[in-house]
Formats: sequence, structure tokens, C-alpha cells
Amino acid sequence: MSVDPVVRPGTGAAVTLRPVTGARIHDGFWAARQRVNREVTIPLGGERVRDSGAFGNLRRAARGGSAEHRGKIFADSDVYKWLEALAWERGRREDDGLARSYAQASELVAAAQCADGYLHTHTQLTGRRRYSDLASSHELYCAGHLMQAAVAGRRATGDETLLRVAARFADHLAKDLPADAIDGHPEVEMGLAELHRETGVAAYLDLAARQVAARGRALIQLKGHHGPGYRQDRVPVAEATTVEGHAVRAMYLAAGAADVAVETSDLDLLAALGRQWRDMVATKTYLTGGLGSNWYGEAFGGHHELAPDTAYCETCAAIGSVQWSWRMLLATGDPAYADLVERTLCNAVLPGVSLDGEHFFYVNALRVRAGADPDDLRSPARGRQGWYGTACCPPNVMRLLSSLDHYLATCDADGVQLHLYAPGTVRAGGVLLEVETGYPWTGRVEVVVKETPGHPWTLAFRIPAWADAAGVDGRPAEPGGYHRVRRTWRPGDRVELDLGVRPRLTAAVPRLDVARGQVAVERGPLVYCLEQADHPGVIVDDLCLAAADLRDAGPVAGLPADVVPVTARGRAHVHREDDGGFPYRAAVAPHEPEHGGPVDLTFVPYHVWANRGAGPMTVWTPMHRP
Amino acid sequence: MSVDPVVRPGTGAAVTLRPVTGARIHDGFWAARQRVNREVTIPLGGERVRDSGAFGNLRRAARGGSAEHRGKIFADSDVYKWLEALAWERGRREDDGLARSYAQASELVAAAQCADGYLHTHTQLTGRRRYSDLASSHELYCAGHLMQAAVAGRRATGDETLLRVAARFADHLAKDLPADAIDGHPEVEMGLAELHRETGVAAYLDLAARQVAARGRALIQLKGHHGPGYRQDRVPVAEATTVEGHAVRAMYLAAGAADVAVETSDLDLLAALGRQWRDMVATKTYLTGGLGSNWYGEAFGGHHELAPDTAYCETCAAIGSVQWSWRMLLATGDPAYADLVERTLCNAVLPGVSLDGEHFFYVNALRVRAGADPDDLRSPARGRQGWYGTACCPPNVMRLLSSLDHYLATCDADGVQLHLYAPGTVRAGGVLLEVETGYPWTGRVEVVVKETPGHPWTLAFRIPAWADAAGVDGRPAEPGGYHRVRRTWRPGDRVELDLGVRPRLTAAVPRLDVARGQVAVERGPLVYCLEQADHPGVIVDDLCLAAADLRDAGPVAGLPADVVPVTARGRAHVHREDDGGFPYRAAVAPHEPEHGGPVDLTFVPYHVWANRGAGPMTVWTPMHRP
Repeated sequence: MSVDPVVRPGTGAAVTLRPVTGARIHDGFWAARQRVNREVTIPLGGERVRDSGAFGNLRRAARGGSAEHRGKIFADSDVYKWLEALAWERGRREDDGLARSYAQASELVAAAQCADGYLHTHTQLTGRRRYSDLASSHELYCAGHLMQAAVAGRRATGDETLLRVAARFADHLAKDLPADAIDGHPEVEMGLAELHRETGVAAYLDLAARQVAARGRALIQLKGHHGPGYRQDRVPVAEATTVEGHAVRAMYLAAGAADVAVETSDLDLLAALGRQWRDMVATKTYLTGGLGSNWYGEAFGGHHELAPDTAYCETCAAIGSVQWSWRMLLATGDPAYADLVERTLCNAVLPGVSLDGEHFFYVNALRVRAGADPDDLRSPARGRQGWYGTACCPPNVMRLLSSLDHYLATCDADGVQLHLYAPGTVRAGGVLLEVETGYPWTGRVEVVVKETPGHPWTLAFRIPAWADAAGVDGRPAEPGGYHRVRRTWRPGDRVELDLGVRPRLTAAVPRLDVARGQVAVERGPLVYCLEQADHPGVIVDDLCLAAADLRDAGPVAGLPADVVPVTARGRAHVHREDDGGFPYRAAVAPHEPEHGGPVDLTFVPYHVWANRGAGPMTVWTPMHRP
Repeated sequence: MSVDPVVRPGTGAAVTLRPVTGARIHDGFWAARQRVNREVTIPLGGERVRDSGAFGNLRRAARGGSAEHRGKIFADSDVYKWLEALAWERGRREDDGLARSYAQASELVAAAQCADGYLHTHTQLTGRRRYSDLASSHELYCAGHLMQAAVAGRRATGDETLLRVAARFADHLAKDLPADAIDGHPEVEMGLAELHRETGVAAYLDLAARQVAARGRALIQLKGHHGPGYRQDRVPVAEATTVEGHAVRAMYLAAGAADVAVETSDLDLLAALGRQWRDMVATKTYLTGGLGSNWYGEAFGGHHELAPDTAYCETCAAIGSVQWSWRMLLATGDPAYADLVERTLCNAVLPGVSLDGEHFFYVNALRVRAGADPDDLRSPARGRQGWYGTACCPPNVMRLLSSLDHYLATCDADGVQLHLYAPGTVRAGGVLLEVETGYPWTGRVEVVVKETPGHPWTLAFRIPAWADAAGVDGRPAEPGGYHRVRRTWRPGDRVELDLGVRPRLTAAVPRLDVARGQVAVERGPLVYCLEQADHPGVIVDDLCLAAADLRDAGPVAGLPADVVPVTARGRAHVHREDDGGFPYRAAVAPHEPEHGGPVDLTFVPYHVWANRGAGPMTVWTPMHRP
């Protein structure tokens, strides 16, 4: 309960909301995933990181001199993200095994550090000149992950092993990093800002601010076909009106820039980030919250370029989006940021790991057709994989699930704001709340005030924009904002929130032409999909919705019993394999394809798809017009 | 008139049709583009190739020893493709300037060749071991282009400078290329087969056949994230049921395999290629004939993965498609292959070069939205560019336009088949035909028999699948086949074909969900589009078609006077910039977006888009439902 949060703005920071001092998920939807994360995924992650050679790199770097470097140039970051997950898990519940793993790995890291504080095993082992290829080397990227892991270690367990390493590295960077040297992959900005928050060292924040300010001036060497936008080096952050390029890089940069903006009270920078965020949400965000339309460059596309099948939607980009939105929420108090956090967590982060905790999606497409190309290991048609050569996503999911408790609630001088609803407890100063709920499967959330100061304060509930039937204690609550209950609370007081969770149909604005004539099923914060496993005898590609009468249904075989599927009446377009030819025909207006007989459609939450084998799947379904 | 054709199957080859011995475009649609190609594009190409350093590489290689190599690893191929264009142009009309350029460049090539016949300037100048990195080195790819250029030189002009170089290289390859050594980028197969046809050397065909047979057995080293499918090394050619991976590589391989199949009478291989072609047409071909859905890997996607905005549709892939389809046409006589040749030439190759001949598209997307990402030089939102760092497309267009005459007609024992309709002459043995037409702007084609043998023979007209109102001499002609006129012809006999060119609406099959609810305008063989230049005051992204009453219209400012635009009544969806938020809303069934007032729509041929500035454009337009 006393773990300091993953993002902790300084006392003078220009924020509207502050993280609570303690929040803990005890049960329900998220707790089940956290349990698997702790018991299965994190131990497996340790093995995979070891097998990838990343520990060996650290060991060889500790010995000094040139030697083989195994794996990717950014292999160190896998270790750091995994260590961060271990740290937050230890904070949630200490455990000898976790503590031992953490101690061993963090000592390896400490031993690998150069005498002057520098640490990047690829550079050390290959003898390449430091900072000579920052466009690709990921030296500062790895440093940023080290810093985040170090802060987690201190906040969750008090362990300072990594903090000393990170501080020495940051001291070195503050002193010796060439002016205008910026990393091709942002990340160090968030790391430096949080390390500053943890240590109070001003130089770390100054360096983070320099990194943000230098960006967008085409200082980074171009490589391959990519223009400067790929590395967010085309337009300065404070002038950009949209997000562009490699989606993970864009999100990490924006999150780090938000940290810098609030710590330096740079309200112009904050306003620019707000504009970019709104443009991203309006024109470059999938229904799932997923980001990145293009495999090429793992990048955002242009406005409204959101094809469901070729979506990249890297799991890491979704995590970066959560990090950015959370910082914007703290800065502004605007609950729209928390809406995106929830949507993204449920539908863009969570699909990244299987229910058994042993398999991972790198790419989270919204449609997989029959006959999808299987050549790339990341192809969603192949299902989740046990690991990847570039293994950024799995340990990123691990650290996020381990620190998810920190995203439940915020506080300000007026009281406490609940953002995510999960069974658990929230401590904010003298307030202790207990939350009971079956959310997101049901909409009822019961909050009990366990401890309270004597003066009046406000308990605010985020009412998601979709929740048009929400109510608090029987009174209607406006969607898309906070419902505030202000009173002098007494221990034992209860408030009942009902978010009115029920299945609904969603359509896209006309400019989103790739979803034209189609609808998606959502239920509460969850986006649903049609999966091949539930539709024997037809191909998902051919299904359409025949009527808008969505109904909650009973459990589906092969999925956890609490998952609520949604059923509806559908039909299948007739696809004639035997008339194979050119798939473009004279249009008969109004053009309506031929339909077969009725089909019972079963929609399941998108985040659980591909847990019963891979196969065709779609989030968007055409509406049949009789 | 006596130029031997670009593809010339051997006398014993298993082909149904044979190329004619002479065909010449004199005027009209294609002649205008050929004139610009000759007068502007080819001279400009020579300068660009020189500026890229490719001639300098040859010069330094001629001196021997290690030295700087400039440009891409496959820079030699730019020289060869440009030389091939020069050769065919010289065959069309000799010219001192062309002859001098050709002589200079071909002597440079000859001088750069190693004593043992090997030639690849990157390998020679860097000292890298030959064939040590065939996955990436493009050594055989360049060799293939050399061979094609050499054959063109001999056939068009009798010049044997390059033929000697190519034959010595091929002799070296036949003797010294390690068994199972295959190039990551197919091309040498076509080159070897044609060199065999030109020289009669059996070893060249044997080597081509070995290259085809070795492929698909995962012999090529994997690089980066790409699986073996990227380089067509996942499934043997004779077993594959579809095309996959890098689209240009796939097309060049298939075309070379077709050459091998007919020369070796390998009917199983030919049947496999036919299956792959039909699958490609049914599931992986854009309406334009463009190929390759993905920027990532410049590759085919899965079945029905044909998003218009993120389409790659590399100009080179379209050219490779023409090469493959033409070979399949010769092999089988099936006019469906010629249908795709025409569609692809008009709508996927021709957009690759501007009307002024000075600018080139690498990528040919079917939709460009407002706010498209401009970061990559290849982004169609930036319009055609003067050249590219990877300059495969521009000289490829040059050589195709220079040899386009060869694709007009074929012959067999029964007579002559006309496939493309252009004003000009066709010579096939004792037959000489003169063709007059304003096609594709009008549908009328007049053919005059100028010379004829005394015995009866058949004049066959390809009736495109779209031509449902075609007639020959007033009698209806079935679309999607040949209309045959058999008689004893006399000089001066005339036949009048009318292809019934008029604007029409086309829709996609339901599985092509990215075009759902939308239609395209076509007119004759041309695909049309809506371009921003013709729609001031509205954004193309918001336009929809309100009625199916398409009409031919008068000339459009800024386009050649013969271009026939098509007009129709439309409307604009209302896009509210100010309600920016999340672009997904509760669906009201039937879901229909809000519309503004009427808009006059002007559709222009897709191949001329972006000649009046770049900007939003779409081939697919939603149908408004009142």
C-alpha cells in the first residue's frame, strides 16, 4: 500500500492531479491477468532474456574488453524492463524468488557499468565509439529503461542497487553527452525526468529538457528510406500539430516531453502536446486504442489511414500511449485522457499477452482474413508467439501489468478521482477506499469509504464517454466527464456507481473510409470481434450483421467463464471460389452482395481472440441491408 | 519493322502464340508517351544515372582494384535498363545521339568486365567475395538486366558489344556459379532464357532452369525480420499456389519461370504458374492492376488485403506483371492474360511517369487523403519525384515504353491476334495490317489489310472482359475472348471493331472489404479517380457519388486535350473539424453519414493524376444512399 507510484510529479510541478500514495488491485478482471503475469510471464521472461544472451552480454561487459555481443543492439533494455516488472511485483508482494532474481540481475547490471558511469553492452563489447551512431545505437534508449527500472526498484522495495547505477550513468550523460546528441529512439526523457523526481538532481531534468528541445531539427542522421519524421526529428515537439513516424518512439517522446513540460512549467509545450494528442485521437487511433497503421517503419500513417488488416498497433505503442495519456491526465485533469488509457489498456495492451501468459502479440491487427500472409513471425495470422528476436513488447507488458495499480486513481486538494474500476483499495492521504465490482463484465461499482478525514471532500468518478446510461446512487451521471460526490464522509459510507455496461454498436466517421458500411460491437470499455473459432462452417470474412439486436450470452467454450460474449443475428455473403476471376464487377446500384442463410454471430472481447488457435477475425463487421 | 521482339520463344518452345515479327505504334495515346520517353525521359535518365555515380563505378571497376562504389549495391542495373531502353529506341528509329550514348555506355560496361567474365561493380570495387551474400548482393539480378539489355541491343540494332559481355558473364556463371546459389532478387532467369533464345547456348537455359528449381527450399539466408517468403524461397515455384513476398521479385521470378517452362516444355510448371496467376488476379490485384499491398517488404499481402491508401503498387511490380502475363499469353493463348497486360499498362505502369516525362512515381496508391504523411520521398502525397535513391522504376518505365510495340499482337498458324489497339502497323509473316483508332478515348478501331497471303487466315480481336457492348463490323462480339474473322483476305480489306468505350461503375466482391459500399469509375481500359484539382471548396476525402448517371465531359484545364473526363452528380459528407474527438460514434442503423449540398464530380483517368500538383485523390468513391 505504500509503494510510490510509477509517475510522481515533483512538488512544484504544473499538474492538476497527483497520483495517489497507494492503490491496490485485489481481485477481478485485472487481478487475474496480474496473477498470471507474476506466476508465469515474469519467470518465463527471465528465461527468455537469458536465452537471448542479454545477461551474457552484461557478464562479458563486466569483464571489459572486446567480446561477442548477442542479440539486438538494444538487448540491455529487455533486462531493464524485466527488472522493472520484478521491482513492481516485489512492491505488490515480496517473495524470495523475485528478490533473488532481482538481486542477481541488478548486480550483473552494476558490474557491467564502466568506471565513468557509461553502460551499453553493445558499444562496450564491440568497441564502437560512444554516441557515434545515436540514430541507431539505442544507447540513451537503454539508459532510459535503466533509469525507469532503477526508480521502480527504489520506490517498490527501497533497493538502491540500480538507482546508484542509473544515477552514475545520468551524471556521466549530464557531463559528457555531446550537445545536440539525441537518440534515434526516445525513452531517456521519461527516464531522466523520473530519476530527477526520485533524486532531486536538477541536471537530470535539464538533460531531459535538452533532449526534447533538440528534437525536430533534423539533427539525427537519416538511415535507409525513412525521412526525419520516422524518428520525430522533422518538426520540433513544441511546434508539431500531430504525431508521426515510428509509433513507439512518438509515444515515448511525447510522454517524456509531458514530464518535462510539467516539471519546468512549460505550458506552451504542454498545450502543443495536448493538440498533438487530440489530433492523434481524432485521426490516427484505432477503435482499440491501437496506434500505428503501418508495418513499414512501425509507424503512424496520415490522417484517417486506419486500415484494420494492415494495422501494426504494436503492443509497445499502446503502452507508450498509456504512459503519455496518464501524464496528460495528471497535467490537465481532463478525463478524456483517462478514457483513452482505459480503452488502450483493455483493447491494445491486453491482447499483447495470451491468457496463459506464455505467448505474445507484437502486432495487433483489427482484421485477419482467410489466406493472410504467414511469412513474418509477427503476422497476427500466426497467433501469439513465445518470444521475438526484437523482444521489446513482452517485458513491456510485464512491467505495465505489474504497475497497473498505480493507474486506478488520482487526487487533488479537493479529493479523490477514480479512473479505473477494479476490486481493490485506494489510499490517498487520509482517505482509504474499498472498491468492489465485477467490471468490466458488469457495470456496478461499489465504493466504501473505510477511512476519511473529518472535513468534506469530493469523490469523483470518471464516467467514460460511452457510458450513456450511467448513474451514481440512482441519479444519472453525464458520460465523458467526472461525476462528483462531495460530502463529509464517514467510515462505512457507500456509493454505488452503475456504468450501464451493455453491448452497443459503433460506427466510424465518414473519413474513416476503411470502416465504411461496417459496425463494431463494444460492451463497456471492451471492443469485441468475430473470431473463426465461434463460426464453424462459414468464414469470418463473409459474415455480416443482419440486425442490431445485440444480446449478452452465456460462456463460450475455451474462454474463461467470466467472459461475456455477445450474440446477434447475421448472414454470410456468398463467396464463390469457383468464379475466381478478377474481383471487380459491374456495379448494380444500389450495390448489395448476395447473401446466404442466417448465421448466429458470436462476438467475443478482442483481447481474448486467438486464445483458441489463430484464424480469421474481425473487429469491423458489415451491416446487412435487406 | 524488322526488330525482333523483346520475348522470342525458341522454335521448339511449348507456346500457343508467337510474337509477331514486326509491330509499330505510329500515333495516338501510346505514341505520345513514347515520344516524351524518347525525347525527354531517356536523355534525363542518362544524366540521372551518371549523377548517381553508376557510370563512375564502371569506370573505376575497369581500372581494377579496390575503390569507392557509389550508390546502391544494384546500381549497375540502372545502367543496363537504361541501355535496354536506348537499344529499343534505336530500333524504333536510329539517331546519332542515341547511338553515341549507347556506344559510350556499352563500352564502359565491356571495359568493366573481369577477365573471367564476372561483372558486378560493387563486388569488384569493395573486394567482397563473389556470391558470398547473394541474399542481398544483387549480383545475378544485375547480370539478368545486362543480358536483357544485350539481347535488346542485338535485336534492335545488331550491335553485339553487350551481347559479348553478357555471353561471357553467362559462360562464367554456367561454369563457376556454386550449385544452389540463387539470388535474393530474381531477374537472371528471364535474362538467361532470352540470352539462350538469342544465342542458342543450352547452358544458359539449363542455368535458368536450375535457378527456378532451387528456389523455395529456404536456401537463401534470412535477413532482418523477413521470412523466406519475402524472397520467394518458402515454397518451390512448381508447388506454390499463390504469389507472395516482395512483389517485383515475385513477378520477375514468375516471368523467368514461364520462360523456362515453355523452353523446357515443363507443362506442370506452366500449370502451377497459371494457378498462381489466377490466385493473384482473384485476391491480390488492385483494380488498377497494381500489385503489392504493403510498403513493408514492398510486398504482396494476404488474400483480399488490398487497402487503397496504403497500397504500394510499385511501378516495377506492374512492369514485372506485364512481363509475366505476356509470357503466359504466349504460352497459353488465353486472352485473360492480355486483359491484365492492358489494364496494368494503362493504370499501373503509366502512372509511374508524369506527362512531362520528368517525374516518377515509385508507389501508386489508389487513395491519398488530406493529411497524408509526407515523410517518405516515395509518399504519393508528395507527387512524382525527379529521381530516387533506389532508381529501379524510372529506367524500367523507359525500357517498357521503348519496347511497347512488341506487345501489340501475336500470331499462330491460323493467323494474327490483336491484343492492344493503337494506330500503327503489324507485320506477321506475309501479313501486314494497318490500324487506325482513337482508342482508348474512343472505342472504334479500324484495321486495314495491306498485305496478305492468298490463303484464308484468321484475324482475331481481343475483346476485353469489360467490353460488353463490343461489335465487329456491326455484329456483337463476346467480351472476355477473341472475336475471330476468318476469310481469304485481299489487300485493302477493312474490319471495324467497336469496343463500346463509355464510362461505367465498378464494385468489388464482398471479401474486398476495403472497397465496401464504394464504386470506381472506369472507361474502356482506364481506371478513373477523383482528384483534388477538380474539386475546389471541398476535400476529395468527403465526396460521394449521388447518382449513377456518368457522362463523358469536355477537356479539363491542365490536362492534354484528348483526355476524356467523366462527370457525375455527387455530394460531400459533412466533416466537422470542430467536433474533433474520437472518430467512432454510436451507430444508428441504417448508418448513414450527414451530407452537404450537391457537388459536380469530375473523374479523370488515374494515370494522369498528380500532373496538376499533388493532393487528395481516390479511385474508390462511396455511393450515397438517399
